[in-house]
Amino acid sequence: MTETLSDLVSARFAITSQIGGSQIGDNHPALGTHALQLQHRSVRHFTAKTVPAETLDLLFACALSAPSKSDLQQTSIIHIDNADSRRQIAAALPSMPWVASAPVFLLFCGDSRRIRQICDRHHTQFAHDPLDALINATTDTAMVMQNFILAAEAAGLGCCPISAVREITAEIAALTRLPDGVFPLAGLCVGYAAVKPPLSIRLPLAVTVHKDTYDDSDDAALIADYDKRRRSVNPYKTQRDVETFGQDADYGWSTDKARQTAHTDRLAFSQHIRAHGFDL
Amino acid sequence: MTETLSDLVSARFAITSQIGGSQIGDNHPALGTHALQLQHRSVRHFTAKTVPAETLDLLFACALSAPSKSDLQQTSIIHIDNADSRRQIAAALPSMPWVASAPVFLLFCGDSRRIRQICDRHHTQFAHDPLDALINATTDTAMVMQNFILAAEAAGLGCCPISAVREITAEIAALTRLPDGVFPLAGLCVGYAAVKPPLSIRLPLAVTVHKDTYDDSDDAALIADYDKRRRSVNPYKTQRDVETFGQDADYGWSTDKARQTAHTDRLAFSQHIRAHGFDL
Repeated sequence: MTETLSDLVSARFAITSQIGGSQIGDNHPALGTHALQLQHRSVRHFTAKTVPAETLDLLFACALSAPSKSDLQQTSIIHIDNADSRRQIAAALPSMPWVASAPVFLLFCGDSRRIRQICDRHHTQFAHDPLDALINATTDTAMVMQNFILAAEAAGLGCCPISAVREITAEIAALTRLPDGVFPLAGLCVGYAAVKPPLSIRLPLAVTVHKDTYDDSDDAALIADYDKRRRSVNPYKTQRDVETFGQDADYGWSTDKARQTAHTDRLAFSQHIRAHGFDL
Repeated sequence: MTETLSDLVSARFAITSQIGGSQIGDNHPALGTHALQLQHRSVRHFTAKTVPAETLDLLFACALSAPSKSDLQQTSIIHIDNADSRRQIAAALPSMPWVASAPVFLLFCGDSRRIRQICDRHHTQFAHDPLDALINATTDTAMVMQNFILAAEAAGLGCCPISAVREITAEIAALTRLPDGVFPLAGLCVGYAAVKPPLSIRLPLAVTVHKDTYDDSDDAALIADYDKRRRSVNPYKTQRDVETFGQDADYGWSTDKARQTAHTDRLAFSQHIRAHGFDL
């Protein structure tokens, strides 16, 4: 690695930064972890090279070592290995061809069933508030998935999370026989990257990190600057919903996200989850 | 490091495992990441050594490089730097003295406000289903927090997530002036470990990883074995709620969790969030 951590921070935020300059000695054994994190990219185009089962097992072990709320371990991972199952999921998500083409496809599920079964076996009554049960299982699962992604990247693999499995929650639940209390949080495409995707520039820490109290009074200006940096590093090739919103000469991240979130999303998830284990 | 990855997997699951044996060459530059993940421990006892601001900035940059659902970046981190604020939070969580004693205390918040403000500025109407908006912000935030924890561990620090901030959601929101749409998901204690805590043994992959379809038909036996392994490696020193449930000669993880989840939890979170930004 010829780049310093400062170079990597600067690239991630598209701003010259001294962060990471000399705080951590070059001979620190875990330096590579910071470099991996700063260089994260979602990978959607894979070579045909298969991922050895032994590697996957190592990644599962690493991932499931993440902290777990109250040690409840409310995550289940489903490895979609059957070609027919994969085809059905891919067919339901036609805008994401990488769901079909990735060498490995995993489903990260929140699992509030296991602990309820344990309560049954021990003659207690699971009493967590349904919303908090959902948030706990979601948080555990997201942490395991992030740990998996970094473990995969450390093994030279690339990943792409697929939250759109929640658009087809009922179909996924039927296909993978999810009982009540288990829900798909995200899919994950895994494999060896065919091309190195561009780096996704992040909001500056001045927007995302606050001291003592939440303060977004400078966000409009800071985000306008960020839009400019993204335009210069990685401009959008097409504009979203031009027929509704028209062409925007200053089209950038904010415009794209303001248009994207103007669509109702994921009613399928909300409907399924309320009927299958989470009486919100 | 004299241990192999196989040794670390075996320790994490308290079972002799070949996982990690020879799949990744000893000279792989990122080997340290897998070792860090497998050796994760939550740290609750810290030395007085302060964490340099430059190190924290690097960890924030690493953490916020995590994938983000649709690139919406729905996370805000609040660094509780003010001693009075810290005292107030610690006083509200008296069973967790590490909230007071950790050199650094952070609050990881789901942030659905920023994108709504962006919609306002761009004259669109945020239309995501409230439950899915909550799940997306939660997932983004949990992934950022896991990335932060691993970055901290790579820098020689230790962390302890504090989901109990959701027990006092309204107090936290008032103290840190969280506007509607921003909610505390977890606190995080950060510092240099004073003692190396025991490793928390994990459920076997036969319970947590499924192939193609969810199958928990062997869970009762597998979890009984797991209870035994935990008892031999790291037995519980006290039993929970003996006055209600009595003494259990085979007290282990399942018994503990069955008793623990028999208490209603986190109504404060559910009430606050429904009134402040998420009309579920």
